[in-house]
Amino acid sequence: MYIKAYLKEKRELIDSYLKSYFEVPSSPLILHEAIKYSLFAGGKRIRPILAIASYEACGGDSKEILPQASALELIHTYSLIHDDLPAMDNDDLRRGKPTNHKVFGEAMAILAGDALLTEAFFMMTNTVFNGKKLKLSPVLRVIRETSLAVGACGMVGGQAQDILSENLEPDIDTLEFIHLHKTAALITVSVRMGSILALAPKEKLQALTRYGENIGLTFQIIDDILDIEGNTKKLGKTTGSDNRKKKMTYPSLFGIEKSRKRAQNLISDAMDALRIFSREADPLREIASYLIKRRA
Amino acid sequence: MYIKAYLKEKRELIDSYLKSYFEVPSSPLILHEAIKYSLFAGGKRIRPILAIASYEACGGDSKEILPQASALELIHTYSLIHDDLPAMDNDDLRRGKPTNHKVFGEAMAILAGDALLTEAFFMMTNTVFNGKKLKLSPVLRVIRETSLAVGACGMVGGQAQDILSENLEPDIDTLEFIHLHKTAALITVSVRMGSILALAPKEKLQALTRYGENIGLTFQIIDDILDIEGNTKKLGKTTGSDNRKKKMTYPSLFGIEKSRKRAQNLISDAMDALRIFSREADPLREIASYLIKRRA
Repeated sequence: MYIKAYLKEKRELIDSYLKSYFEVPSSPLILHEAIKYSLFAGGKRIRPILAIASYEACGGDSKEILPQASALELIHTYSLIHDDLPAMDNDDLRRGKPTNHKVFGEAMAILAGDALLTEAFFMMTNTVFNGKKLKLSPVLRVIRETSLAVGACGMVGGQAQDILSENLEPDIDTLEFIHLHKTAALITVSVRMGSILALAPKEKLQALTRYGENIGLTFQIIDDILDIEGNTKKLGKTTGSDNRKKKMTYPSLFGIEKSRKRAQNLISDAMDALRIFSREADPLREIASYLIKRRA
Repeated sequence: MYIKAYLKEKRELIDSYLKSYFEVPSSPLILHEAIKYSLFAGGKRIRPILAIASYEACGGDSKEILPQASALELIHTYSLIHDDLPAMDNDDLRRGKPTNHKVFGEAMAILAGDALLTEAFFMMTNTVFNGKKLKLSPVLRVIRETSLAVGACGMVGGQAQDILSENLEPDIDTLEFIHLHKTAALITVSVRMGSILALAPKEKLQALTRYGENIGLTFQIIDDILDIEGNTKKLGKTTGSDNRKKKMTYPSLFGIEKSRKRAQNLISDAMDALRIFSREADPLREIASYLIKRRA
């Protein structure tokens, strides 16, 4: 149960930072409400936690990089809001609640996403936090890598390919492209962020990158399996929707059993990548095990 | 005619940088095409030119900040694509061509905007260009100020208020809020950018900020006047659309004559702000005169 306590502790740290950050309302109020609605809809804060766990594995104290780590959750939330739009995946339910555009209308949902993405970069430029002054060079590098990972060459490209591939015959190359860009890119850069901000040596950064890529892909495969196997209530979103939309997924191409096997292999490789670390990487190891076992 | 040659020279510099930047296609190709379609639709590059003119006024060489300056055009283009969407202003025509979503569909238009916004921040992190190595601290400050100017507390907030104010009784406070946030914030930060990157002293930065705020407001007022007076062909967008959509504009509240007068006063104040500069600020002065005289 150690990992659950760890995840809870870090999630509360991040939530508390985000709550205080968005405490002062901006104008117009409805935009502020739309932003908060999705940001505080019960997200697990996995990406910020990965950045923090990686920072700690490289000798840092989690409280020092809360702005940079939490910015990853803003980016993740923006991507969910835009992906759910009628013109995109047209989803009505997210984390058990009506999607942003269902509550605030399409215009506000688009703008809330735009605002979250923009605010993420503002948040990342905060270099003095909790008494720690981060060096400027790694902060700039983190902004550079994050923007690359979530733009046309990363997450946005993956989402575009995902949309374009609906109703097409599934093929492994396209599927891997979608997974690597749409999901794994942001997860990988989350793990790299912690390591870069901790000024870790190259070999640690490389090991953590390999770890990140592996769990990033796993994350998407498990997501696709849960879309078939999970139940709507537990997952908080409509299950079976990938199939209805004729999305290209791992299980649709290889079946559930082979997909689970593939996820297990990826996790083994992620664990192997961490072997140059001692106990300080235990949270990262446990997160990897946790990801493959998750049911929601 | 000096200013026309100046604007042409700088526009070509920016266009050439942007062309080479987007030369290598990213995948999927259609997203790349959607991005290029709007980015190379004949924009005047006013925001990058303002950054460059401000950098030059503070002693810099324009070629050194092309990445940061050009990033402003990416942000401007993203805002146009998203503003034109059916859920927002629902415009069919922009710069004389069908709007992005009319050509590429809504999903690609949303993603092209997302990609441009993200790429802008990536572009801004480029600190070594044309043999010049920019200091990291002003680059980080520029990223911080730009993200603030175009997020919920800036441009996105202005657009949200604009949408929310359609069909409402016009009032001066709301109108000023929309103009200051939707248009003036990005223009002001464009001018500030040049000054910050040139490591200009505080008094110059303050003077340029006042200049930027004044021409930013002027820009929107003239835009609103042209929407009434201009002709569709010259302007490249459907005129009279503000009125049809019952947008809150300066002319709708004060009439055209009073609006022109207000614009002239703002330009006078912008000129006054520049009096601490000598000849090196002449392009900024001429841009201000040019803005108020523009007919398209």
